[in-house]
Amino acid sequence: MNNTFGTLYSLTTFGESHGKVIGGVIDGCPAGIKIDTESVSRQLARRRPGQSAIVSKRQEADKVIFLSGLIDNVTTGAPIAFVIENTDVRSADYDNLRDVFRPGHADYTYYVKYRGYNDTNGGGRSSARETATRVVGGELARQVLACLEPSLVIRAYTKSVGNITMPPLKSLPTDSQIEQSPVRCPDVSLSRDMERLIVETCKEGDSVGGVVECIVSGCPVGIGEPIYDKLSARLASAMMSINAAKAFEIGMGFDGCRLRGSEVADNWISDPSDRRGIRTAANHSGGIQGGMSNGEDIVFRIGFKPTATMMKEMETVNRQGDPVTVRAYGRHDTCIVPRAVPVVEAMAAMTLLDLILIDRARHL
Amino acid sequence: MNNTFGTLYSLTTFGESHGKVIGGVIDGCPAGIKIDTESVSRQLARRRPGQSAIVSKRQEADKVIFLSGLIDNVTTGAPIAFVIENTDVRSADYDNLRDVFRPGHADYTYYVKYRGYNDTNGGGRSSARETATRVVGGELARQVLACLEPSLVIRAYTKSVGNITMPPLKSLPTDSQIEQSPVRCPDVSLSRDMERLIVETCKEGDSVGGVVECIVSGCPVGIGEPIYDKLSARLASAMMSINAAKAFEIGMGFDGCRLRGSEVADNWISDPSDRRGIRTAANHSGGIQGGMSNGEDIVFRIGFKPTATMMKEMETVNRQGDPVTVRAYGRHDTCIVPRAVPVVEAMAAMTLLDLILIDRARHL
Amino acid sequence: MNNTFGTLYSLTTFGESHGKVIGGVIDGCPAGIKIDTESVSRQLARRRPGQSAIVSKRQEADKVIFLSGLIDNVTTGAPIAFVIENTDVRSADYDNLRDVFRPGHADYTYYVKYRGYNDTNGGGRSSARETATRVVGGELARQVLACLEPSLVIRAYTKSVGNITMPPLKSLPTDSQIEQSPVRCPDVSLSRDMERLIVETCKEGDSVGGVVECIVSGCPVGIGEPIYDKLSARLASAMMSINAAKAFEIGMGFDGCRLRGSEVADNWISDPSDRRGIRTAANHSGGIQGGMSNGEDIVFRIGFKPTATMMKEMETVNRQGDPVTVRAYGRHDTCIVPRAVPVVEAMAAMTLLDLILIDRARHL
Amino acid sequence: MNNTFGTLYSLTTFGESHGKVIGGVIDGCPAGIKIDTESVSRQLARRRPGQSAIVSKRQEADKVIFLSGLIDNVTTGAPIAFVIENTDVRSADYDNLRDVFRPGHADYTYYVKYRGYNDTNGGGRSSARETATRVVGGELARQVLACLEPSLVIRAYTKSVGNITMPPLKSLPTDSQIEQSPVRCPDVSLSRDMERLIVETCKEGDSVGGVVECIVSGCPVGIGEPIYDKLSARLASAMMSINAAKAFEIGMGFDGCRLRGSEVADNWISDPSDRRGIRTAANHSGGIQGGMSNGEDIVFRIGFKPTATMMKEMETVNRQGDPVTVRAYGRHDTCIVPRAVPVVEAMAAMTLLDLILIDRARHL
Repeated sequence: MNNTFGTLYSLTTFGESHGKVIGGVIDGCPAGIKIDTESVSRQLARRRPGQSAIVSKRQEADKVIFLSGLIDNVTTGAPIAFVIENTDVRSADYDNLRDVFRPGHADYTYYVKYRGYNDTNGGGRSSARETATRVVGGELARQVLACLEPSLVIRAYTKSVGNITMPPLKSLPTDSQIEQSPVRCPDVSLSRDMERLIVETCKEGDSVGGVVECIVSGCPVGIGEPIYDKLSARLASAMMSINAAKAFEIGMGFDGCRLRGSEVADNWISDPSDRRGIRTAANHSGGIQGGMSNGEDIVFRIGFKPTATMMKEMETVNRQGDPVTVRAYGRHDTCIVPRAVPVVEAMAAMTLLDLILIDRARHL
Repeated sequence: MNNTFGTLYSLTTFGESHGKVIGGVIDGCPAGIKIDTESVSRQLARRRPGQSAIVSKRQEADKVIFLSGLIDNVTTGAPIAFVIENTDVRSADYDNLRDVFRPGHADYTYYVKYRGYNDTNGGGRSSARETATRVVGGELARQVLACLEPSLVIRAYTKSVGNITMPPLKSLPTDSQIEQSPVRCPDVSLSRDMERLIVETCKEGDSVGGVVECIVSGCPVGIGEPIYDKLSARLASAMMSINAAKAFEIGMGFDGCRLRGSEVADNWISDPSDRRGIRTAANHSGGIQGGMSNGEDIVFRIGFKPTATMMKEMETVNRQGDPVTVRAYGRHDTCIVPRAVPVVEAMAAMTLLDLILIDRARHL
Repeated sequence: MNNTFGTLYSLTTFGESHGKVIGGVIDGCPAGIKIDTESVSRQLARRRPGQSAIVSKRQEADKVIFLSGLIDNVTTGAPIAFVIENTDVRSADYDNLRDVFRPGHADYTYYVKYRGYNDTNGGGRSSARETATRVVGGELARQVLACLEPSLVIRAYTKSVGNITMPPLKSLPTDSQIEQSPVRCPDVSLSRDMERLIVETCKEGDSVGGVVECIVSGCPVGIGEPIYDKLSARLASAMMSINAAKAFEIGMGFDGCRLRGSEVADNWISDPSDRRGIRTAANHSGGIQGGMSNGEDIVFRIGFKPTATMMKEMETVNRQGDPVTVRAYGRHDTCIVPRAVPVVEAMAAMTLLDLILIDRARHL
Repeated sequence: MNNTFGTLYSLTTFGESHGKVIGGVIDGCPAGIKIDTESVSRQLARRRPGQSAIVSKRQEADKVIFLSGLIDNVTTGAPIAFVIENTDVRSADYDNLRDVFRPGHADYTYYVKYRGYNDTNGGGRSSARETATRVVGGELARQVLACLEPSLVIRAYTKSVGNITMPPLKSLPTDSQIEQSPVRCPDVSLSRDMERLIVETCKEGDSVGGVVECIVSGCPVGIGEPIYDKLSARLASAMMSINAAKAFEIGMGFDGCRLRGSEVADNWISDPSDRRGIRTAANHSGGIQGGMSNGEDIVFRIGFKPTATMMKEMETVNRQGDPVTVRAYGRHDTCIVPRAVPVVEAMAAMTLLDLILIDRARHL
């Protein structure tokens, strides 16, 4: 349930931001797949704090230790458990916050749900530190997908930071185009503007939101289950489960809802060069029709709110309901978007693998 | 799985657009609740085709027949099965479409997934006709919620049609304010503009999209389960499972992601008049923090694409991949938004009831 | 949950013993399978009351009406809903029982769980009438299995009635051997003894228990998921969910637990004529090792208690806790075992199909 | 799925017999419960190898290390992850077995299911070493139950070893009566006979099976969900998932199925001294009627087959299908029953807690 994601390929996670470790258990991974652990490390490095000047200063190596389910890095079919140590913990930063409901954080909701017993150090379980474990589950899912569907590619990148938005891309960006900037926007010029915006916002002690876009190319047709397990519904759930996500849209999204049908029709045309023999003239639907993949690029965007932690004084209340002033505390990201990019890819990979496995089960 | 929604309170649906019946099975409904079947009929009437001049001309009474689980309309704790007859079926309208992949529809994806065995009459299982069964499941959930959480109110309405958008509301609109117009926008003046836009678009043989907004007032604090069953994730999944939904956002949504943290901070303030003793000064978070309800109004929006069916000729292909022209066919809604309003409320009610039941289980 | 059985192939059931109908929804059935509805009727006839002199006199035709999911009896991939009418209902028989906790029945447990709101007519939802819907779900599962695993055969029969027990069979009995007697024991001589015992017990106003044995031949190797979804665990759960089941065992069962390891070892031997190239010399394990099928015949037995309803006076209490005498009432089976045989086969078929689908999902 | 047990209170396990660690993640544990870790250690000590002269000589301290979910041993509501180190690993014992399908073991079924990629050292994932993690999950469940249902007691003990069977008990045995003997049979005299039988069987290089009986006293009425999640079905599944379990029965079990209804009727009688005001005169039903607890003692038995490993030469085949002779290897239990006792209690505790949580959710 709550700490488990997925049905046939599942990830169960555990651990708190300032606990000994965070970790997870991957269940349902097919046997006989050689895991590239270097690639797992690379993905974790893309998410880890301290990776660049524009992200949180917390220093975590985020080295993953596998506890089970692998022999010589080959999957055995048994559950794959892993842990990542928390090494740079400064719980003292939170000492004077234990009693406070920080604005925009999960302090109040966790306090009520768990009647004050929840771990509050560094945000405890509600911290985005949990997403490191998703990156592990997602990278293994991606490696399984590479066996099952070799032409499937998942690529996310920064679409906007604050009011700076990259226009639609002509083609799928490469990994190196995305990684050329610490912001992870493949547009060189805009990525500099975004970086500057983050630096300036940080100097002002403020924070800023943004949007991640993700493209899944080469997905087989018919993935997703009607009625309630639509690919669109599953992706929405996966993405909205990421910390700070407040919005999700597919293809033309909200903008398309202001238009007429004649402006966004997805006419099919013959195309012998396509593996399907046909393709849509445009892709307003974002690769999903009737809740299933139609073989076009699956395109979706996730909006992340500005980080709730800021270096400004904020007025709020404590557990007794009394007004208190919160001052600068902890280490945080001025803009979470650059680090959310690999998490979005991870959630997409797990969602797709799970639905592809379910689809395979019923093939005669 | 695919045709079942929910964990402790679940709805399993069946039936095709042009089959004998559509129907569902509600499981997990607590015993001893007196069901107001008039209210179920009223909700179905809000969704049914033929209800006004601006919706599909298909005439369906949408009378629900309960088959089990009730004695004198009181729930027994057993599964509640029900059917709704399909009476105004014109499958002949689809005779020349059996072989065609209509643009923007699920024809191609269903064809591939089910290898051509799926029912195509009237869209078969992919038709929005299935949403009538959700309205039944949702209205019963609402009546259970009225027992468990008497102050909880769920209210959806049309936020925008095409490029006409209602500004933020000052307070929760009443049912009669919403129902004063066939468009279901509580702003009298704008609802007329929207109605006019739909009528004109219809005359042009075109279609138009729009946005539904939903407010849940009076939700208890701490509803939603971390990490992957967040209230935000569950609502996103529920809403994106509705036909034609392409976008979802909570609170400040995508717009808030262009702003700075200082602009959207949700400071807590003391308020002895509030049941919680505190409240947020603003509600940018839309009632959800850390994935759980914080007691503020839960506010979310769903974007619906323009109806894919139009009264214009459209170029597309058939199953053989050959180009074909699709002409006007069937009966449809120029804008699905007015009829989506009760469906959004139904999905919200089922989502909240399910998560509230789960939350209650672990209270000591 | 409670009224749904299965994961990838699932059956959700509804309806009460004396309600309008009983029915179910089968979800996850692969598309393109031609359903033999005659065969469904034949299986229902094996379970229906009134089929012979030794079973309940209630007369039900048990004609199944499919509501969705089929076109010309071919599965479309959509959920398959069906109903069976209750035609021979005599709720008056239960009028003076509404207030009584009958010995050995579910009256008290349902009363407490549902606070008196449950339907008590004819046992309501707790009646074995529900098992008719399992026969439908099971027969469709068997027909899907016939496509996926043509050599797989499921066959159950009466192993014992009261203290009359059939010795181990030398080979899989045929359907006609099983059906030669209304008792469904393939041993002609013993089946007559069992029949006589049932008739005599009935005359005495008493009831008697018995055991059903089931053999699954031709199951592929490796079906069942470690650790908690073992084939043995899933079969146990499926069988113990049948009304009146009190005991379950695999292979050598309880008797084998009194023996030494050297007496029950399942040595493997080479056998080029076997599809596996090897087989076990004996099959004490009953076809399941480490929780998975090993390709030998899967053999298990289910013990059914004597019917709780008898034509004798019984002392018990009513809802007020006062002593009352229950007299002969309703119509019932002196021994439920003959009619349980097709239900056991149905549950076995659904269990195996579900696990086989899950297994297929992860094949590379 | 396969490595996760339970719905609202769940345990996900990982780790192989000869890997670094075994471990688990407990999810859904209510917050605010003080865990008695000494009691966890005591339960693990009852299961650990090397605890007495009649069990496996493998020496494991089985010290549990909690990784998350606790602050000062109080549950926080977050998932509780834990590991237990494997310290006394002699994989060399298995070197010449890697290629062999041992009789009665999971070697062949795992080999086929995982295409040879599974870990075979010490039985890998199929080893009963995994049950140590169940003891942890079960003991925490028991401690939660102690808060929710203080009068509920779960007690298992050895009912039979080989052909030595203890007659029915007059009353619930105490922990010390059970622990007085390494066999865990509360009958002092019979426990000596059983111990002698195990020692002699061991000397002969043979093994022997047996039966564990478990009594749950003080369970609330109405626990268990109809139709497919009956308490009887869930207990059956839980118990049959334990290594070497081949049989399961409730109350009068198989023996009762040879009797007449008049011999096993469970008449209700008034009893003002009982919390229910009534009770059954006898308890043939074993505390479960209609699939739910009726407030009587829940009584069930599990049959465990003789250990497949013996100190005798056994004829079998290898992966190539060639005949091979397996000689004495590894360390093992002559009779698994004494160590299965705490595992049965653990599975019972988790099953009951899960169903009690589900039941609580729907109480109005």
